[in-house]
Amino acid sequence: MDLLLRNGTIVTAAETYKADVGIEGGTIKQIGLGLGDAARTIDASGKYLFPGGIDVHTHVDLEEHLLGHGTVDDFYSSTAAAACGGVTTIVDYAFPAEGQGLQDALEAWIRKGTGKSVIDYGLHPVIRDPTDEVIAEMADVVAEGFTSFKIFTTALGRFDELASRYLKAIKEAGRLNALTNIHCEDQCCIDFITRELDDAGKAGSVRHYPDSRPREAEGLAAQRAVRMAGLADAPVYLVHLSCEEALQALDDARGRGQTVFGETRPLYLHLTREAYDGDDFPERYTCWPPLREMEQVEIIWQALESDVLQTVATDHIAWSKAQKLHGKRVDEFLPGMANLETLLPMLYSDGVRTGRLSLNRFVEVSSTNPAKLFGLYPKKGTIAVGSDADIVVFDPEKKVVIRQADMHSRQDWELHEGFETTGWPAFTISRGEVIVEDRQLLASPGRGELVKRKPFGSI
Amino acid sequence: MDLLLRNGTIVTAAETYKADVGIEGGTIKQIGLGLGDAARTIDASGKYLFPGGIDVHTHVDLEEHLLGHGTVDDFYSSTAAAACGGVTTIVDYAFPAEGQGLQDALEAWIRKGTGKSVIDYGLHPVIRDPTDEVIAEMADVVAEGFTSFKIFTTALGRFDELASRYLKAIKEAGRLNALTNIHCEDQCCIDFITRELDDAGKAGSVRHYPDSRPREAEGLAAQRAVRMAGLADAPVYLVHLSCEEALQALDDARGRGQTVFGETRPLYLHLTREAYDGDDFPERYTCWPPLREMEQVEIIWQALESDVLQTVATDHIAWSKAQKLHGKRVDEFLPGMANLETLLPMLYSDGVRTGRLSLNRFVEVSSTNPAKLFGLYPKKGTIAVGSDADIVVFDPEKKVVIRQADMHSRQDWELHEGFETTGWPAFTISRGEVIVEDRQLLASPGRGELVKRKPFGSI
Amino acid sequence: MDLLLRNGTIVTAAETYKADVGIEGGTIKQIGLGLGDAARTIDASGKYLFPGGIDVHTHVDLEEHLLGHGTVDDFYSSTAAAACGGVTTIVDYAFPAEGQGLQDALEAWIRKGTGKSVIDYGLHPVIRDPTDEVIAEMADVVAEGFTSFKIFTTALGRFDELASRYLKAIKEAGRLNALTNIHCEDQCCIDFITRELDDAGKAGSVRHYPDSRPREAEGLAAQRAVRMAGLADAPVYLVHLSCEEALQALDDARGRGQTVFGETRPLYLHLTREAYDGDDFPERYTCWPPLREMEQVEIIWQALESDVLQTVATDHIAWSKAQKLHGKRVDEFLPGMANLETLLPMLYSDGVRTGRLSLNRFVEVSSTNPAKLFGLYPKKGTIAVGSDADIVVFDPEKKVVIRQADMHSRQDWELHEGFETTGWPAFTISRGEVIVEDRQLLASPGRGELVKRKPFGSI
Amino acid sequence: MDLLLRNGTIVTAAETYKADVGIEGGTIKQIGLGLGDAARTIDASGKYLFPGGIDVHTHVDLEEHLLGHGTVDDFYSSTAAAACGGVTTIVDYAFPAEGQGLQDALEAWIRKGTGKSVIDYGLHPVIRDPTDEVIAEMADVVAEGFTSFKIFTTALGRFDELASRYLKAIKEAGRLNALTNIHCEDQCCIDFITRELDDAGKAGSVRHYPDSRPREAEGLAAQRAVRMAGLADAPVYLVHLSCEEALQALDDARGRGQTVFGETRPLYLHLTREAYDGDDFPERYTCWPPLREMEQVEIIWQALESDVLQTVATDHIAWSKAQKLHGKRVDEFLPGMANLETLLPMLYSDGVRTGRLSLNRFVEVSSTNPAKLFGLYPKKGTIAVGSDADIVVFDPEKKVVIRQADMHSRQDWELHEGFETTGWPAFTISRGEVIVEDRQLLASPGRGELVKRKPFGSI
Repeated sequence: MDLLLRNGTIVTAAETYKADVGIEGGTIKQIGLGLGDAARTIDASGKYLFPGGIDVHTHVDLEEHLLGHGTVDDFYSSTAAAACGGVTTIVDYAFPAEGQGLQDALEAWIRKGTGKSVIDYGLHPVIRDPTDEVIAEMADVVAEGFTSFKIFTTALGRFDELASRYLKAIKEAGRLNALTNIHCEDQCCIDFITRELDDAGKAGSVRHYPDSRPREAEGLAAQRAVRMAGLADAPVYLVHLSCEEALQALDDARGRGQTVFGETRPLYLHLTREAYDGDDFPERYTCWPPLREMEQVEIIWQALESDVLQTVATDHIAWSKAQKLHGKRVDEFLPGMANLETLLPMLYSDGVRTGRLSLNRFVEVSSTNPAKLFGLYPKKGTIAVGSDADIVVFDPEKKVVIRQADMHSRQDWELHEGFETTGWPAFTISRGEVIVEDRQLLASPGRGELVKRKPFGSI
Repeated sequence: MDLLLRNGTIVTAAETYKADVGIEGGTIKQIGLGLGDAARTIDASGKYLFPGGIDVHTHVDLEEHLLGHGTVDDFYSSTAAAACGGVTTIVDYAFPAEGQGLQDALEAWIRKGTGKSVIDYGLHPVIRDPTDEVIAEMADVVAEGFTSFKIFTTALGRFDELASRYLKAIKEAGRLNALTNIHCEDQCCIDFITRELDDAGKAGSVRHYPDSRPREAEGLAAQRAVRMAGLADAPVYLVHLSCEEALQALDDARGRGQTVFGETRPLYLHLTREAYDGDDFPERYTCWPPLREMEQVEIIWQALESDVLQTVATDHIAWSKAQKLHGKRVDEFLPGMANLETLLPMLYSDGVRTGRLSLNRFVEVSSTNPAKLFGLYPKKGTIAVGSDADIVVFDPEKKVVIRQADMHSRQDWELHEGFETTGWPAFTISRGEVIVEDRQLLASPGRGELVKRKPFGSI
Repeated sequence: MDLLLRNGTIVTAAETYKADVGIEGGTIKQIGLGLGDAARTIDASGKYLFPGGIDVHTHVDLEEHLLGHGTVDDFYSSTAAAACGGVTTIVDYAFPAEGQGLQDALEAWIRKGTGKSVIDYGLHPVIRDPTDEVIAEMADVVAEGFTSFKIFTTALGRFDELASRYLKAIKEAGRLNALTNIHCEDQCCIDFITRELDDAGKAGSVRHYPDSRPREAEGLAAQRAVRMAGLADAPVYLVHLSCEEALQALDDARGRGQTVFGETRPLYLHLTREAYDGDDFPERYTCWPPLREMEQVEIIWQALESDVLQTVATDHIAWSKAQKLHGKRVDEFLPGMANLETLLPMLYSDGVRTGRLSLNRFVEVSSTNPAKLFGLYPKKGTIAVGSDADIVVFDPEKKVVIRQADMHSRQDWELHEGFETTGWPAFTISRGEVIVEDRQLLASPGRGELVKRKPFGSI
Repeated sequence: MDLLLRNGTIVTAAETYKADVGIEGGTIKQIGLGLGDAARTIDASGKYLFPGGIDVHTHVDLEEHLLGHGTVDDFYSSTAAAACGGVTTIVDYAFPAEGQGLQDALEAWIRKGTGKSVIDYGLHPVIRDPTDEVIAEMADVVAEGFTSFKIFTTALGRFDELASRYLKAIKEAGRLNALTNIHCEDQCCIDFITRELDDAGKAGSVRHYPDSRPREAEGLAAQRAVRMAGLADAPVYLVHLSCEEALQALDDARGRGQTVFGETRPLYLHLTREAYDGDDFPERYTCWPPLREMEQVEIIWQALESDVLQTVATDHIAWSKAQKLHGKRVDEFLPGMANLETLLPMLYSDGVRTGRLSLNRFVEVSSTNPAKLFGLYPKKGTIAVGSDADIVVFDPEKKVVIRQADMHSRQDWELHEGFETTGWPAFTISRGEVIVEDRQLLASPGRGELVKRKPFGSI
């Protein structure tokens, strides 16, 4: 045996039990009591063994053309951050350039990852212009292992103009057993309010940022998304949901018998809209959609616990402080931030330790569900014999104060600076290789592999 | 006293009682038992006295430029039909020509009515392009007594392109205490399905007409409409609703505390989608939205009874058979038909006599509610001292078989040909003048007046 | 003409308009503009003319045997209070003594009213023991004009023991087109909590009174009531509802197509449970069910406005302060209080002036709806030609500070002492007779008549 | 190693994967690929390894005193049937005799099981009379490992009479972290309808059996149960639910934040009420509650799939045909039947093979969830290292026609006679011992052990 994890407490989506884990050839060979010797043995007494985190919503290396700025991370720095936080797989969005096809975009993205990624990664092609040519390409990219697509209901996707063609794309994805990810915010509402803020002289202040992208805009877009999915008879996955209006759309669709899924994001679990009123660089919190009220935070936790939502993912996108401060109006602030490294520790501290999530549910939303939905399971997403040995040895008592200085993203500021967590990965193991030990990255760039994914499978 | 209606049973939205009605100077002067002599006395024994019907949704004279064909009715023929059916007031939609302003459109429409209308009429300006100029005009037209607006969520209003500006218009209407009427069908869904039908070689058959404009499209547009109204903090009135998906949008909005209203249309109360499968000119039934399933018909009746819906209106628009047959594809058939003359008798026969609606509710949905919502009350919409003497002396036992030959619209075919009604107006009285007696029109063209309306008032 | 009300503003459930009202022989003979002379003319300029209030839930003269104490009011003092407050009809509950039949109970109650009542009154027989004999009597009492029954889900009706027989009684009432009134509180919950309070040494304090009869107990009993009504295929009317749990039962039943109605009571519109924490005779507020939280008050107002609830009634029952203080435990305090005189002024001040209710809805819930539901309409419940001239000339600007000293009930304390109302009856007219003028009672005892009622009719 | 299961497909609540299972000392020692030698090896190629079924609702040996008849099974015959059907644990209800305490009842039940049971068994004490003495006993029996209780809302529990004391018992159970099981049917409704059937001369026919215990009765009792649980702040588990009305009660309670669970029963998944119309011994189908309509069957499957319901259990109770035919009226027919042996094969055939349940959900509802809810997990309810080796080697392709002649219960007729299943246990293993092989029972009476259970733990 190559590696033996001894005396840990294995946690899966359904079980919590003590046993040793024996790893050989990158996969889990045995789980048992008193397993024999191995080339290396790690004592996991008092530790949890979680399946490695799977973050299916990242933008780890985005060039300037999309949002006017290039991200400060690339596949190396961001996956280093991921690994240090216990995430062993990401699925990144591959954006076509203007007029580019899906396969060309995927090739460009594979080039970005190759030689850089320290963990395994999949890719979702983004559809920004659902022409007949693009729709014709979909079957091929699914056949090649890219079994999900992304669309935006906002200006980024020129959605209002192209909606009936997007509907065709959603239908084609459904026919191909691929899962369509949808960013849900209604551009018309946002434009209207932005103009109102402008008229009132308020569009220049980040304090009014959350007003400019209200919950109603998200809820309305989510309702459109699930209704379109219903017409297309296709499954959909709504990304980064932040409020009850959007959850209602999921509920309604399920009540009609549709197959729909929902993702939330650390931001909506740990922060509230009061953040925009602060004085110390409040632009750091700008994101699509924006932070909401405290009562929405509780609603999102409750939805995560009760399976209204199925996953948590980061939308990781790293900008420098200068970039974040570049925009001067509510419709110019760059959205999002780096948060791959804090995803699991924050979810554990704020979720499991507070009793909001069981240990099993923590594993389910951060690893098993994303793996099942996006065709990675059972290769990824669990600790079971035959699966990839992607395992986090998690120390539930380790106290860490989050500091930008300790982070591996190249972002020069930190979202949760000063936040005190209890619980942090002691080791991160990817395909049997210890890639992080005690917050030190041991992996070499490029060891991470592109993962071809199976078709969408229900949870 | 000019006119005395003796011994009738007065029906209002809340009451049913026997009394005489004394009319002087065009208004109701007295209601009482054993009222004294008058210049003319009508014996209304065994008859109901209803306030005259108010149809707030008509297109009585539309030129070619909007839909490629001009209607066969004008203000004379259509209001003659209305009067003969017991309708004493209409509110017609004034459409601006390409680039035309609201006031110019209203002037054009007033010219159409002047010298022709035999009953009183109001006008709703239609907003087809909510430019800043148009929005700036709104306050003036409201001040002039046009206290409602109409918008379309379909291609007719280029809605998806202009949605954020429509939102501004809805907000401005709310600020002005004017009620925005919204035609709710989602164009993107319709376009998608039409293309699918095309691909399947089915777009040319009227049998597939209802598939091309599905209930989901209506429900989705209704959800958008009420959400936009919520953002605009303005009341809205959704026209010609046909299905539970749209009713759900009303319910949801009311649950959030919004002020929203719903209208249905005779078509959705009396006919089902099987009509498109017939052999005898099934194109007659094409309308926006199309006919639905039988269970939806019952749902609409139930919604009308239980105040989920507030009004019934016709969407009267008269096309010749040749015009109806001109289109060759599901997206070309001309929508709608003449039905002003049958509105009240059909509603009475199918609604009141079957027990679906009480007499009082019949009056409420066909007269009192439209009057209250559109600023006509108490001048119109009830039988009360001081109100205009717009009264239908209705014979509840009169049996009429509906025949095109007997109708006053110039449409050369009839939607309900052969339908047997029980209950028909014996007299129609407008501002104290008997304008119809025993189905004979006695009114001269142009006696009808333009009605300036008060601001929107809740029911 | 005997009496002419000149220049008032008539308010009915649907209309608000200015006209004169001519009264002859106790009924309304004419409504009109500029009506001619009469024996007496009252100038109603600046006043509203409301149909007299109808309170269908009173206990105006209860002997000792039921609750261990006799009420301090009788038919004279309580109807005097009613008249002074603008109520022109009550429907009182006739309780059989132990083992007494319904007809005997009605006879006893008629004896109480005869010679004493100053306004018209109907009677609901109470069923306390639904034996075969009692059920057999129901058809007779309905035939005699007592077209409603009352049952209690509490110990007062030994409900848990007799529930299947009560179900039979509800079914029989339905068959007879009589409406069953149900007091909904679950005795088992109350007993359980009372014992818990006892164990905690809290049962002796009025502060814990609202805990002892929680919203859940009301909601649960309401759910049982509507489910039983469903099985019995009979309409039911749930009395004095105080909370959302009970409203939900109404909603659910309506969603299943049942015919159900709901009443609330002034207490739940004007007061909150904090009242029990006061020092000045907080026992005054004890009632079944108890006062609730502020947010429930708003929910009840909203339900009244939106037709989830149909009526307001008082549950008037007058106890001396000594009687109220006699009980020493949460399960001993006498429930209820006198409030017939303040019903309409309080509802007007807190409801109409605040914008919670329209004028028309005020009339509907306080007069028209009770009249229609309980077979009094159109004799009572409206201002229309042919109806009884039961009219309140209401001065909307009259300011009155409520003082026990000014009240006509014999209760020696006042629920709303010191409350400032705006709006009070200037005249109360019953069958054309001015029985109250400027808060002075002019009526003689016994002028009020027993009203035989028609079968239940829907609203 | 004592026993090695080689090459099977392990199915747990969350995973499906191929691996060997090594068993030693009655528990699972290793799970891995290519595990080494063992005393015995079973080739499980092409088979599923399921955790043994756990049926938490049985009456395997009931004496005459409760229902007037003694069951034909005892702990031996019924657990033999269970084992042959793949069930390795039951939790049986221990009924106190009249006036008997809980501990005495448990002792009596342990005597029944001792020396007879071939599989492990737990016991739920039944509370039939919640006196202070009985409530005082609860803490002791929980301490001894009987961590759940059962109550009946029907006459069996004299519920309407004792409801407030049952509420106290539910609260005490909650305080003790014990789970209260509730049989939900409203006796008052049943009594009412039975009397109506009697009056109509229909009570003697089994055709009217389902009418006598309608869905409303179940729904109403379920609503009472969850409301009482809410007041008691305690978790509850509603047994053998059959219809949407009861599911609604669960939904409502969850919406209020309560912790509630639901069980269904094979009957409601495989049969419909038309069964009572048959000619061949239709009394076989009598049960509490009765069979429902086909659309309810689909609703129950859907609820099982979507986690509205958490478990399936049999309510196994074996009566001879003569006993079933003894009653002559709808209120006399003995409820229930033997069905422990067919539970898993029927659920697999009708559930998994039809696509209604995933393999994982099959395991979850038949083993993992019951184990977690009733304190048996992780000793029972999964296939994981350290757990008891209670495993079914299930042959998914084995076709069996169900015949009474092949069954191990002593019941002389079979509920599903002639039903063709696909999928049947090849081996049943209990604590590492092969107790059934190819439908042959190998176990000796009395090898089954009483299981002391841990406190209730959420799923």
